Amino acid sequence: MKIEVSLKPGHSDPEGETTARLLKELGYKVERVGVSKVYSLSLEAESLEGVAAEAEEMCKRLLANPTKDNYAIVVEEEK
Amino acid sequence: MKIEVSLKPGHSDPEGETTARLLKELGYKVERVGVSKVYSLSLEAESLEGVAAEAEEMCKRLLANPTKDNYAIVVEEEK
Repeated sequence: MKIEVSLKPGHSDPEGETTARLLKELGYKVERVGVSKVYSLSLEAESLEGVAAEAEEMCKRLLANPTKDNYAIVVEEEK
Repeated sequence: MKIEVSLKPGHSDPEGETTARLLKELGYKVERVGVSKVYSLSLEAESLEGVAAEAEEMCKRLLANPTKDNYAIVVEEEK
């Protein structure tokens, strides 16, 4: 399962701004860079729906800050 | 365009290990957590192939460390 946590629009992203500046200095025509974080988790579960609900809960309890973060959950089955 | 930079297998990922430990303490049956970084870039270019080649170059010059990082590039066209 993958969980991508990114900043909500309007929040400052100093790492993205620095990356954009450095890439421009290297000569690339970059407009904007945003940096987000991906958590790749393996866990055992009985159903895909159960995993998605658990992932949502993990985001709310630990991985994402509801004030400033958006998150996206992608569940993949391993066989 | 998105560039995902992740650690090569075998490299220690303290942030992933800490996240796994905290999720276990919260009661989730997580086996392993890996943390990677996604750069979302907007740039103007004449062709998708040109963008992919430029992205590859950006990874080699700035975004990824060839000793410890893998990277994956996804190019999307905005119209």
